[in-house]
Amino acid sequence: MSFKNYPMVSRVIFGRGSFNQLSDVLQPKRLNTKAPFVYFVDDVFKGNAWLTSRIPLSYDDEICYISADEEPKTSQVDELVEQIILKYKEKPSGIIGIGGGTILDLAKAVSIMLTNPGEAKDYQGWDLVVNPAIYHVGIPTISGTGAEVSRTTVLTGPDKKLGINSDHTPFDQVILDPELTKDVPKAQWFFTGMDCYIHCVESLTGTYLNAFSQSYGEKAFELCKEIFLEDGLSENDSQDKLMMASWHGGMSIAYSQVGVAHAMSYGLSYLLGTKHGIGNCIVFNQLEEFYPDGVALFKTMMKKHDIQLPQGICKDLTDTELNIMIDVSIGLEPLWENALGKNWKKTITRQKLYNLYKKM
Amino acid sequence: MSFKNYPMVSRVIFGRGSFNQLSDVLQPKRLNTKAPFVYFVDDVFKGNAWLTSRIPLSYDDEICYISADEEPKTSQVDELVEQIILKYKEKPSGIIGIGGGTILDLAKAVSIMLTNPGEAKDYQGWDLVVNPAIYHVGIPTISGTGAEVSRTTVLTGPDKKLGINSDHTPFDQVILDPELTKDVPKAQWFFTGMDCYIHCVESLTGTYLNAFSQSYGEKAFELCKEIFLEDGLSENDSQDKLMMASWHGGMSIAYSQVGVAHAMSYGLSYLLGTKHGIGNCIVFNQLEEFYPDGVALFKTMMKKHDIQLPQGICKDLTDTELNIMIDVSIGLEPLWENALGKNWKKTITRQKLYNLYKKM
Repeated sequence: MSFKNYPMVSRVIFGRGSFNQLSDVLQPKRLNTKAPFVYFVDDVFKGNAWLTSRIPLSYDDEICYISADEEPKTSQVDELVEQIILKYKEKPSGIIGIGGGTILDLAKAVSIMLTNPGEAKDYQGWDLVVNPAIYHVGIPTISGTGAEVSRTTVLTGPDKKLGINSDHTPFDQVILDPELTKDVPKAQWFFTGMDCYIHCVESLTGTYLNAFSQSYGEKAFELCKEIFLEDGLSENDSQDKLMMASWHGGMSIAYSQVGVAHAMSYGLSYLLGTKHGIGNCIVFNQLEEFYPDGVALFKTMMKKHDIQLPQGICKDLTDTELNIMIDVSIGLEPLWENALGKNWKKTITRQKLYNLYKKM
Repeated sequence: MSFKNYPMVSRVIFGRGSFNQLSDVLQPKRLNTKAPFVYFVDDVFKGNAWLTSRIPLSYDDEICYISADEEPKTSQVDELVEQIILKYKEKPSGIIGIGGGTILDLAKAVSIMLTNPGEAKDYQGWDLVVNPAIYHVGIPTISGTGAEVSRTTVLTGPDKKLGINSDHTPFDQVILDPELTKDVPKAQWFFTGMDCYIHCVESLTGTYLNAFSQSYGEKAFELCKEIFLEDGLSENDSQDKLMMASWHGGMSIAYSQVGVAHAMSYGLSYLLGTKHGIGNCIVFNQLEEFYPDGVALFKTMMKKHDIQLPQGICKDLTDTELNIMIDVSIGLEPLWENALGKNWKKTITRQKLYNLYKKM
């Protein structure tokens, strides 16, 4: 098809305290008593009864705490799938991800790999998934990545960092409860929020843009400016609005793509394990040439919130290491094409990326 | 549930010329050769080969041309359902609506009534539909009502004008091809566009509003201002943006409601058959008291586009007739509560509505 037939999240609940409705949402989706709901929960919530006591557990349902300290890996997906298959006689009734982009992407990937043969790495790319995924639910506890609404699940594999982009990837159900984001540490709040902001800059200045993606991107961009530059928003309003910015920012990618910052940040993550949010910020900070207005505003936001970025993370890397990052980055052709047009290879050389990485 | 679990349109295509993809979209949805696709097409397109030659017809598929001169009726839905049941041995593979709000609402209602017993009037209200509808596709050819994305299908019944609001109402698939709106006459373009604008004013000033609905409503409102107040948009961009305004305006109702203009406009439609778009404009023009800023901007837009509203459509009505309109209008409690809060009955008396109608 010339225009993508975009699969939207089928159901969405928005509201402070809507997490309490999880039981009502899941009950009709239980296949039978032997088909459990498996919850992937960010391990920062371990022992946090305020959240965990509200997770409904019956029969063989299980909470699986997962660290989000590292970016999600294809091998991690394969291990989680194997654990589930070995433990239960039946396929789960559903996979519920409760966390940030890492946990949500793992929930999406595992729900796909439970019904598709082979290994997760085989599906990194575009439209390689054949069978519908297991019912999967996304409940973000930090806002910005857009993982709750996107058609991808970004994984680091043996050869590359690349998403499983497919019609079967989006969640069947999302619960947007901004109250769940109340304890996010400030730096993480900023870096993850900036993921949304950077999405928007990349999408709105990209060559792929159409009116659909533009309208979502513009709204997310406006919300980010309101949240990160203006004063006077209450804490609750700020949480509510950032959750919507993340949602619209994710939707803006429907007929668009991210760009230079994401392409280069994937290189950092692949080699150094840099988390996605902070990685985007480290890269974006050096991209005046490509996004002059966006980077200027980003620097104003950093200053306003007194955010310090790590310096010199690439300066001691060997040429071999830098070349690995350049390989990962330059391989993300749709991102470069969106950013710079069909002739992007005229602007983007290995030397150019080498010089940019050296500054980070 | 305290917060609505909002059903989103499962699939959406946006793009100029995307109507050409209809065949690819429908093909996998054909149940068998005896289960046809039934197309409800606005009869303004009868003989318009530019559009109709692109409607894919195989086996028993059928185009049913329908006039949108009148607002859709529950009796009309029942007749269409009966025709389909009598004509075909099997239930259709799908109902495809190609037109404005009237045609789209008929397509939604018929797809519901093909799988639910009784008459359409029995389902006017909130969450009365039990069985999932037949697969249904919405393809708007005019922008503004938001019918392509909403959870309702508004019908005039024997007793009331009220929507079938249900989780089974939204389309399974929407194709947003702004090119299909290129021949909309100017007055209709304006009145239908104003339906979106008025939605936004009612939603954004309403008491039900939350951050979800607000973000959609604000974007639709901005787009309306750009389209109807600014100069310099190309015709294509204007069509693209109005289609997105309609989409976001419809979404803004998810956790909100319309308000005074819609409540009173339903009265006009019920008694006089006034079309929804122009009816909203006639009412809204008299609502400075409730929406001072919104009405001021509306008047600027009318002036800029040299739009004349019909005058004195109620001045010769008898008290009996006016009372019928007041009954229909005042019965729409959620709309009044959204507009004016729980104590709306203190402000809205029968006399007040009488006086307002008399001015129209």
